[in-house]
Amino acid sequence: MTASSQPQPGRVGYAIVGVGQLTKDELIPAVRESEHAYLAALVTGAEDKPEVSGISPLRPEDIYAYEDFGKLADRDDVQAVYIVLPNALHREYVEQAARMGKHVLCEKPLASTPEDAEAMVQACRDAGVLLMTAYRCQYTPEHWAVRDAVQSGQLGPVRLLNLVHSHVEEDRGAWRLDRKLAGGGPLPDIGLYCLNTARFVLGREPQWVEAALDQPQDDPRFREVERSVSFRLGFAGGVLADCQASYAALDVNALRVLGEQGRAAMDPAFQYSDLCLTVTTAEGRQQPDFPAYDQFSLEMDHFAACIRSGAQPWTPGEEGLQDQRLMAAIYEAARTGKRVTLDAPEGRDVFRGTPPQVPGR
Amino acid sequence: MTASSQPQPGRVGYAIVGVGQLTKDELIPAVRESEHAYLAALVTGAEDKPEVSGISPLRPEDIYAYEDFGKLADRDDVQAVYIVLPNALHREYVEQAARMGKHVLCEKPLASTPEDAEAMVQACRDAGVLLMTAYRCQYTPEHWAVRDAVQSGQLGPVRLLNLVHSHVEEDRGAWRLDRKLAGGGPLPDIGLYCLNTARFVLGREPQWVEAALDQPQDDPRFREVERSVSFRLGFAGGVLADCQASYAALDVNALRVLGEQGRAAMDPAFQYSDLCLTVTTAEGRQQPDFPAYDQFSLEMDHFAACIRSGAQPWTPGEEGLQDQRLMAAIYEAARTGKRVTLDAPEGRDVFRGTPPQVPGR
Amino acid sequence: MTASSQPQPGRVGYAIVGVGQLTKDELIPAVRESEHAYLAALVTGAEDKPEVSGISPLRPEDIYAYEDFGKLADRDDVQAVYIVLPNALHREYVEQAARMGKHVLCEKPLASTPEDAEAMVQACRDAGVLLMTAYRCQYTPEHWAVRDAVQSGQLGPVRLLNLVHSHVEEDRGAWRLDRKLAGGGPLPDIGLYCLNTARFVLGREPQWVEAALDQPQDDPRFREVERSVSFRLGFAGGVLADCQASYAALDVNALRVLGEQGRAAMDPAFQYSDLCLTVTTAEGRQQPDFPAYDQFSLEMDHFAACIRSGAQPWTPGEEGLQDQRLMAAIYEAARTGKRVTLDAPEGRDVFRGTPPQVPGR
Amino acid sequence: MTASSQPQPGRVGYAIVGVGQLTKDELIPAVRESEHAYLAALVTGAEDKPEVSGISPLRPEDIYAYEDFGKLADRDDVQAVYIVLPNALHREYVEQAARMGKHVLCEKPLASTPEDAEAMVQACRDAGVLLMTAYRCQYTPEHWAVRDAVQSGQLGPVRLLNLVHSHVEEDRGAWRLDRKLAGGGPLPDIGLYCLNTARFVLGREPQWVEAALDQPQDDPRFREVERSVSFRLGFAGGVLADCQASYAALDVNALRVLGEQGRAAMDPAFQYSDLCLTVTTAEGRQQPDFPAYDQFSLEMDHFAACIRSGAQPWTPGEEGLQDQRLMAAIYEAARTGKRVTLDAPEGRDVFRGTPPQVPGR
Repeated sequence: MTASSQPQPGRVGYAIVGVGQLTKDELIPAVRESEHAYLAALVTGAEDKPEVSGISPLRPEDIYAYEDFGKLADRDDVQAVYIVLPNALHREYVEQAARMGKHVLCEKPLASTPEDAEAMVQACRDAGVLLMTAYRCQYTPEHWAVRDAVQSGQLGPVRLLNLVHSHVEEDRGAWRLDRKLAGGGPLPDIGLYCLNTARFVLGREPQWVEAALDQPQDDPRFREVERSVSFRLGFAGGVLADCQASYAALDVNALRVLGEQGRAAMDPAFQYSDLCLTVTTAEGRQQPDFPAYDQFSLEMDHFAACIRSGAQPWTPGEEGLQDQRLMAAIYEAARTGKRVTLDAPEGRDVFRGTPPQVPGR
Repeated sequence: MTASSQPQPGRVGYAIVGVGQLTKDELIPAVRESEHAYLAALVTGAEDKPEVSGISPLRPEDIYAYEDFGKLADRDDVQAVYIVLPNALHREYVEQAARMGKHVLCEKPLASTPEDAEAMVQACRDAGVLLMTAYRCQYTPEHWAVRDAVQSGQLGPVRLLNLVHSHVEEDRGAWRLDRKLAGGGPLPDIGLYCLNTARFVLGREPQWVEAALDQPQDDPRFREVERSVSFRLGFAGGVLADCQASYAALDVNALRVLGEQGRAAMDPAFQYSDLCLTVTTAEGRQQPDFPAYDQFSLEMDHFAACIRSGAQPWTPGEEGLQDQRLMAAIYEAARTGKRVTLDAPEGRDVFRGTPPQVPGR
Repeated sequence: MTASSQPQPGRVGYAIVGVGQLTKDELIPAVRESEHAYLAALVTGAEDKPEVSGISPLRPEDIYAYEDFGKLADRDDVQAVYIVLPNALHREYVEQAARMGKHVLCEKPLASTPEDAEAMVQACRDAGVLLMTAYRCQYTPEHWAVRDAVQSGQLGPVRLLNLVHSHVEEDRGAWRLDRKLAGGGPLPDIGLYCLNTARFVLGREPQWVEAALDQPQDDPRFREVERSVSFRLGFAGGVLADCQASYAALDVNALRVLGEQGRAAMDPAFQYSDLCLTVTTAEGRQQPDFPAYDQFSLEMDHFAACIRSGAQPWTPGEEGLQDQRLMAAIYEAARTGKRVTLDAPEGRDVFRGTPPQVPGR
Repeated sequence: MTASSQPQPGRVGYAIVGVGQLTKDELIPAVRESEHAYLAALVTGAEDKPEVSGISPLRPEDIYAYEDFGKLADRDDVQAVYIVLPNALHREYVEQAARMGKHVLCEKPLASTPEDAEAMVQACRDAGVLLMTAYRCQYTPEHWAVRDAVQSGQLGPVRLLNLVHSHVEEDRGAWRLDRKLAGGGPLPDIGLYCLNTARFVLGREPQWVEAALDQPQDDPRFREVERSVSFRLGFAGGVLADCQASYAALDVNALRVLGEQGRAAMDPAFQYSDLCLTVTTAEGRQQPDFPAYDQFSLEMDHFAACIRSGAQPWTPGEEGLQDQRLMAAIYEAARTGKRVTLDAPEGRDVFRGTPPQVPGR
C-alpha cells in the first residue's frame, strides 16, 4: 500500500467511479502526484474487482462494485466522487452522489442533454454539494497563457479563432459510437474541447452558431452518430471561431487565435501532455517554457481546494451546462442549415467560479 | 536594354497593364526568369511614364499611357496582355484586349461580379483569344503535392480542410477597401486563395456554402467592405472545408487537409515564396524538397505555352467565373444566415483546361 | 503491494542498489513497465529505509541497508543486481555481486578508471555471471534509426559527426563534482553519451583522439573536475567526430551525422524521452514516428532476456571498459595538447554482444 | 540602361572584377538594391564580354577585359573595385588597384597565404586607399543579434560554440579544388565562415588551435586539397569553439553558442538569405523577426559609406589577414597533431574598424 492511498489529514479523499483506460493510465497516477487529494476508493464492475485490485494501490475493501456505490455514503473519508462513466450515466450517479452528500467532479461532457445537465446542477445545489465539470484544459499554464495573451491585449483585438480536434475511432463497438450512451459523436467528445476552449480563451459567450455535419450512410461506424462536425461561433465584436472535429481523421488537435497585433497557436493543444504554444507578434516568434505538471492532478487539486474552502470551482456544473446548451444549438443549426441565435449573457466568465492556481502563472 | 526585353523568336511578348508594387517587385523580374515569355510593353498612368521608364528595361516607346492602350493593336510582337488593375476595371480592359485580338492573362479575382466575369469569358470566346485567370497557387509544386497526396489516396479519404489567409490592411485609402473598385473586401482578395485552393486540391465543386461576415460600424477602414469573413464549403462525401480571411489580423496564410490515413499542412501556403509543406502519416512527418521556381514565371510560361499550342489554360476564365459565382453565394449566405445550395457539376476539374508543367513533378 | 513486485515465474528479479532520483523517478516505474523483469529488492542507506519503504511497492523486508548487501546472496529470487551508485563505488559492488553469483547491470560510466573497469570485467568472467553497462541510448529505436541510416548507406559515406551534451550543475555538494567519487567531471557523466553514441552509430572504434578542457581557477564548483570538455575522435576513412560537454551551459543534447547523400539530426538526443530525429536527403526532410517505450524498461528487459538465454548483452562490461580507456586517452590528449593514437581493433561492434530487440525495428 | 548604372552624385561607383555566378546572381542585383553604390564597370575575360554585355545593365564601353584592368585608372567615376577572382589572384589585383588609387573590397579569403595578405594590407596602406574583406556575415542583423546576445550577457557566460558548414563539391574541375588557385580546400572557402563568425561573435581572438584533416588517397576530387576539416579554437576564459567544414557532405550551415543562462542557434547560418535564429533561455524559445535585406548590398553600402567618410571598414584587410594567419596555424596543427599556441591580442575587436549600420538594430 503506498503512502498516497492512506487517509491523510488535510487531504481530500476521492472515490473514482469507472475504471477504464483513463482511470488506469491517467487518474490513478495523477492522484499520486496531487497535493491536496488522495485515492480512497474505486468503483467498478463486480467482475472487474480482482483486476482493479491488482493494478491499484488500494486495499480490497476499498474497491466497490457499481451496485454498492451507495455504500460510499458510510465512508466519511470519501469527500469527493469523480464520475468517469459513459455520458448517459452521468446524471444518475451525480444525483445519487449528491444525495449521499458527496462533492462531485464529473467528466466532460457533463451530460448527454441540456435537460440532464440542468437536473444535475439543480440536484447538487439542493444537496449543498459542489459540482465541477472536468475541463482539464482550463487548468493548464499553456491554455491560460493563450487566454492571458488575448485578454491582456498582447495580440491586439482578436478577429478569428480556429480549433480542430480529430482522431480515428477504430473500435466499432465503442460506447462513444452509441447515441444513447454518448449523446452524440465527435461533437460532445472531442469537438467539445474546441467549443469550450474558444469560450474560455475569450471569456465570453457566443451570440450565434452555424454548423454542418457529415454523417454518411455507408460507413457502419457512423450509423448513430456523426462522423465529422464543423461549427462556427459568433461573438460580440465580430469575432468568429471556427471549429472542426472528426472521428475519422488522423490525430490532430490544434488551435489558432488571430489578432490584429499578434497570434497564438497551440499544436498539439488538447492532449494530456507536451502542449506546444507559439506566440507571434511583429517582434518574432516565441515558444514560452512552462513548469512540468499533470493535467489531472491540477484538476483534482483545484476541486479539493474548493471543497476545503467552500469556493465555487472555476468550471462548475453551470459551465458544463452552458456547453450542453450550445451543443444542442449546434445540432439544430446543422439540421436546419440556419444560423441559430442565442441568449449571450454579458460580462466575463459568467458561468465560471474561482480561478485556479496555475503553475508558473 | 537587357536581352529579355527584345523580341525573341519563339517567345511570347507580354504587355503588362498596371505598374503597381506587384508589377515592379514580382512581374518584371519574373518575366526575366521565364522560359517562354518576354516583356514587350508596359501600360501605366501618363504621369508615371518617366518613373516606369527608370525602373524597367524597356525603351521609352514601349511604355504606354492607359489612354493609349488601344495602340497595342498595332504591336504584332505583343501577343498577350496581362491585366494587373483594380478588379472593377478588369472587364473593360479584357474586353478591349479581346477586340484587339490579344490573349489575356487577368489577375484574380477575375472580376467584381459574376456578370462581369461571364461577359469577359464570352468576349474572349467571341474574339477567339485565350483568357486565363492568374491563380498562381495552381502552378506551384507544393500545391500540386497536396493535390497529389489527396487524389492518390495517400491521405486516405479526406474529411476536413481548413484554410486561412489574413493580413493587416493599413492603408485606409487603398482601392481594396473601396467596394466599387474591389467588389468586396478580404473575400475576393485573399479569402479567394482559400476558396480556390480548396476546390483545386479536391478537384471538385462545392454543393453548398455557409458564411458569416464581420463588418463593424466603428472601424473607419471598413465602411464599405467586410473586415473578416468565414465560410464553409460542403462537398460530396461529407467533406467540409472551413475558410477564414481577414484584413485586420497579423499575417498568416496556411492550410490543412485532414484524411483518415494522413494529413497535409502548408504554412505558409499562399505567399510568393518559401512555401512549407508537411505531410504526416502513421509513419511520421515528411517535409519534401522542391526545385526552386518563381510563381509568376510559371504562370506566364504556362499561358505562353498555351498560346503557342492553342490549348485551353489550366485556369481559364471559366475557373475564375466559378469562384465569382461562389463568392456571390458566400455573400448571400452571410447576409441571410442560411446555407446556400449550389449546382455542383459532377466530374473532376470541370472548369479547368490543360494541366501545367510543374517543376519536379 | 502491486502485482509487479511479486516473484513471477519466467521473470527476472532485480535488486536495485542505490535509491536516488534516478531510481525513484525512472527505474522503479520502468520495472513496472518491463516485460521480463520485476523489482525484488532495493538496497539503500540504513537511515533511508523508512522513506524508501513509503515510495516503493516492496515489503519492508525487501529493503536492505548497504551493509546488508551481502544478504542478497540468500535471495534466490534476486538474479540480477542493478548498480546505481557513485562511480567510484561501482567496482566494489560489482565484485561483491559477482562473488554472490548475481548478474550485474551497472550504470555508466562503468568505473572511474580503466583499471577498475578491467577488474570488474574480469571478476564477472571469473564468477560466470553476465555484466552489462547501462547504456540506455543503445536500446532506443531513434538511435538505431540513426545507426541504420548510416550503415545502410542511406546517408552516403559519412564525413562528420557532432554531438553535444550540457546542463548546469547547480549543486556544489554533488558527488559528481568530487573527483574521487566521480572519476572526472562532465566527460564521464554526460560527455560519455557523445563518445558512446558516436562509436555505436558508426559501429567502429576511433584511431586517435584530441581534446581540450576548461577547468577554471575561479569557479568554486570546479575545483576538482573540468567545467567543459571538447574532444575529437578520428575514425578510419577520415570520419571526424567532434564532441562537447559542459556542466555549466543551459541544457542541450543533440547530435548530427553528416554524409555525402544525407544527414541525420537528433535534438534532443540523450534525454529520457521525447527524442526527435530528422533525416534529410535530396528528397526533403523526414521525421519518422516510433512506438512509445521506456528506455530503462528496454535496458532491463534486454538484460533479463540475456540472463535467461545466456547470451552476451549488447553493451557488456567490455563496451564500458573501452569507453573508460578512451576517456583516459581524452584526458591525456587534453593535458598534453597532442593527438593520442589508439589501438583500433578492426571489425564492427567488436566490444558488443547480441543485438537487442528494438521496438518497431 | 537602368537608372542604377548611371553615375550618381553622392553614390560610389564600383567596378566588379570577375563575372562568375556570384557576380551574376548576387552582386549585380545587390548593387541595384544598394543605397550608396552603383555599378560603374565590369571586368571579365575578353571572350566573355558579349555575354556579360547581355546580362548586365552597362554600356559596352563599361565592360573591360582583364588585360585592360589598368584602364580603370582613368575612370574617375570608379572609386571602388570589388575583387571576385580565384583566391590566388587577389594579391595581384588588389595591389594594382591600390596603385591606381582605387579603394578595394576583396572577396574572402583575403588571399591564399598570410604573406600575400600582409602584402595587400601594406600596399593599400601605402597607397592611402581603404581595403575591406568581404565578410558578409558580419553585416547581417541575425549575426549581430547573436553577438549582442553574447556580449550583453543575455546568455550568461559562454562556454562552448559549434559551427559547421558543408556542401558537396560536384565539379572536379572547379578552381576551388586546385591548391595553387584556392590556397586550400573547404577550410579557406567555407570553414572560414565558422572561424570568422566565432571570432566575430565573441569579439575576441583565439589563444590556440587544434585541428584534423580528412584528405583521402582514393577520391580524385581531393588530390590537392582536404575533403573535410575540423578545428578547435581556444579562447580566454576556457571558451571552446569547435568548427567543421566539408566539401563532401550534404549542404548544412549552422551554429550554436552555449552559455550558462541561454543559448543561440542559427540554422541556416551562412547562406545568402533565410537565416533562422533561435534564442533559448529559461523562459522559453524565441525566434526574432528581422527586416528584409540583401547581404551584398549591406556590404557594399558599408564600404561606400566608409569611402565617403574616410572611416576604417568594420572588416578591413587586417581582419582578413588575421584569419589567414589562423588558417595557417590550423593547417600546422592538423599536420603535427599538436595544439598550436598563438599570440592573442587583448581587447575587443582589435582587427576591426567602424561598426556598420545594421538593419533594425
